[in-house]
Amino acid sequence: MKRGKTGNNKFLKRLNRMTILNVIREYGAISKIELSKITGLSPTAVGSITSELQEEGYIHETGKGESKGGRPPKLLELKPGSYYSVGVDFDVDYMNLALVDITGQVIDQKSHKVPKWDSVENVAEKLELMIAQIINKHSINRQKLLGIGISIPGLVDLNKSEIIMAPNLGWKNINLKSYLIQLKDVPLYIENEAMASAIYENWIGSCRGIENFVCINIKSGIGAGIFINGKPYRGVSGTAGEIGHMVVDENGPRCGCGNFGCLETLASAAYIEQRARKMARQGVSIKLSSYKDIDSISIDDVAEAARNGDEASIDILRESGRYLGMAIANTINMLNPKRIVLGKEFTKYADIVLDTVKAVVERKALRSPAAVVEIIASEIGDKASTIGAALIPIKELMEGHSCT
Amino acid sequence: MKRGKTGNNKFLKRLNRMTILNVIREYGAISKIELSKITGLSPTAVGSITSELQEEGYIHETGKGESKGGRPPKLLELKPGSYYSVGVDFDVDYMNLALVDITGQVIDQKSHKVPKWDSVENVAEKLELMIAQIINKHSINRQKLLGIGISIPGLVDLNKSEIIMAPNLGWKNINLKSYLIQLKDVPLYIENEAMASAIYENWIGSCRGIENFVCINIKSGIGAGIFINGKPYRGVSGTAGEIGHMVVDENGPRCGCGNFGCLETLASAAYIEQRARKMARQGVSIKLSSYKDIDSISIDDVAEAARNGDEASIDILRESGRYLGMAIANTINMLNPKRIVLGKEFTKYADIVLDTVKAVVERKALRSPAAVVEIIASEIGDKASTIGAALIPIKELMEGHSCT
Repeated sequence: MKRGKTGNNKFLKRLNRMTILNVIREYGAISKIELSKITGLSPTAVGSITSELQEEGYIHETGKGESKGGRPPKLLELKPGSYYSVGVDFDVDYMNLALVDITGQVIDQKSHKVPKWDSVENVAEKLELMIAQIINKHSINRQKLLGIGISIPGLVDLNKSEIIMAPNLGWKNINLKSYLIQLKDVPLYIENEAMASAIYENWIGSCRGIENFVCINIKSGIGAGIFINGKPYRGVSGTAGEIGHMVVDENGPRCGCGNFGCLETLASAAYIEQRARKMARQGVSIKLSSYKDIDSISIDDVAEAARNGDEASIDILRESGRYLGMAIANTINMLNPKRIVLGKEFTKYADIVLDTVKAVVERKALRSPAAVVEIIASEIGDKASTIGAALIPIKELMEGHSCT
Repeated sequence: MKRGKTGNNKFLKRLNRMTILNVIREYGAISKIELSKITGLSPTAVGSITSELQEEGYIHETGKGESKGGRPPKLLELKPGSYYSVGVDFDVDYMNLALVDITGQVIDQKSHKVPKWDSVENVAEKLELMIAQIINKHSINRQKLLGIGISIPGLVDLNKSEIIMAPNLGWKNINLKSYLIQLKDVPLYIENEAMASAIYENWIGSCRGIENFVCINIKSGIGAGIFINGKPYRGVSGTAGEIGHMVVDENGPRCGCGNFGCLETLASAAYIEQRARKMARQGVSIKLSSYKDIDSISIDDVAEAARNGDEASIDILRESGRYLGMAIANTINMLNPKRIVLGKEFTKYADIVLDTVKAVVERKALRSPAAVVEIIASEIGDKASTIGAALIPIKELMEGHSCT
């Protein structure tokens, strides 16, 4: 309820620019009169700010609005291809890149294999090379790059843009920015990968306009990005969303965290692959047993085998769905969210497992919160966190510190 | 980011009054000059609003502030005993009342036994009688009653002030207000009892200034009141905080919700009493077996026996602590809160069980969020939800709709 004095003109001006850009984004195309009505800013202020934004190339005039008598007003919209942002999603053995423009349009995507447990120096070098390639390919001037968003499977410090801990990458207390040479002047934002997915879903994906939702990413680990009241919820020290370490079977396998039966140990893609390889070796799955290189059976292989009727593969996948359903039921009881979005590797076998997840939730969650929640698989497969990371510099431009 | 036009003077005036009252409350005693600085309102506006509030009796002048040259400024504070509020906490077989004044000072408390599963008509009649008694006893004019806050162990609709479902009371879709005759003109607020406790802890209890915390109440059921970013978090349909139905043992007892091994079935006070009676009947506990009326062994009896060294009683209580610890570990991983406050019946045996809860959390929760959380027992025993309910009408006066 406390209000500060608002004498700081520079701050106010920046806030007004952000507000106008964001309203233009939300409305798609809008007249200055409407902008003034919606923002509460005077027509003069709107005129001066939009002129500035037009000069700088962020927005342009497009078509004409409906006339209510007199000349139809000109409409303003974000100018496609005027400014860009790059998102990078890291994981154990790959680096996914996405180039998006200021409108959120995905211009290009790339995926690169990287050696497991590579040094930060090597990763940073590769990162600079990949980003240089993608922006050169599209002849993008470095000045037009709003920033780079990095999605990390681990704990990050948003204020310092540091990686606190990414166990699967073997990184601890890393200031990635300090390793960059060519890109050292480009703003860099570090984000947890499940939260990057949630940012994607909220900004342009399936959770637009949804205030309370949870994105659960299933990969080598399992993490959740939680949105509450329309904003990322991070908890008191930034670690909220650690659903992967919810104990779903006290007698389950030992987890890296020291506990037994954490969700990760029974429903992660890594666990599914491990189980499938074991089944293949034991000859339980005829399909998988016929693979030449059993050690490299992947989640795609298990999903394909299941789709071709391999019972063992179907069982392995559905078993992971049952555990996932239990953890989701607890989440629904506690948080009463509007939507749960399951992402990353899950989208590769959602057709086989989503019904199992829903059935378990129906049985385990309380009726009242279960009745209002929708459980879906992310619509863009495993790319949500990459694009979400790319959206962070744009969000920064329009909403201020994207971290809050 | 959207801003509405702020031409509505009546609304603005109400907002400014609330802001000033709330700042006075927060600061204890404050000068008009400081009020103007903190709120950003002009000295003229502050002068006119505080005069009005003084005339109406909400605030008064007290002592004098420090002079920085010239006359020392007069300080304003909330006027004790000027306005009042009554809070009522319902449960299966009792009705607890608290009378508080505008400063949050508890003036009186009462507890009444009520028959189990009584009709709403009877309960409403008793409620009116009890409230009349407590305000007459203190010669309080009905006009000075800001409102009545009701705390219910169940699901409530804050907007309609209705009880949607209170399974332990046997109530469903009840508009309590419509049953009141003498009190029909007094504002009535219905709140979930765990959230009422959380409101108490945040407003005057152990969570002042804490943005993210969870109050877990243990009684016949187990429920949580969640505060996020300094406000009650209720979820998309108002049911958030249903921690009692987190499955902590898949092979556990059947729960009223249809599942097996919900936290409630293994750690509620009702379960502890049930287990103790069984032990008494089986002669496992010498202490409890010596009770004349085994069927009425209460949680107080179990706690007392444990304190006197009865091993069986200690085991029963600590077992409940282990399950509670598991659910709390999951909550800490998901929400990364600053504090967990355990309330209601738990405070009767906290000295025996709190260490067990903490030990389980240390083993089961991830290190990083576990390192920042404090787990404590509520300092005012089982009265937090009663006083919390009484604070709602005062919160309404100072912060607007207390429900958000």
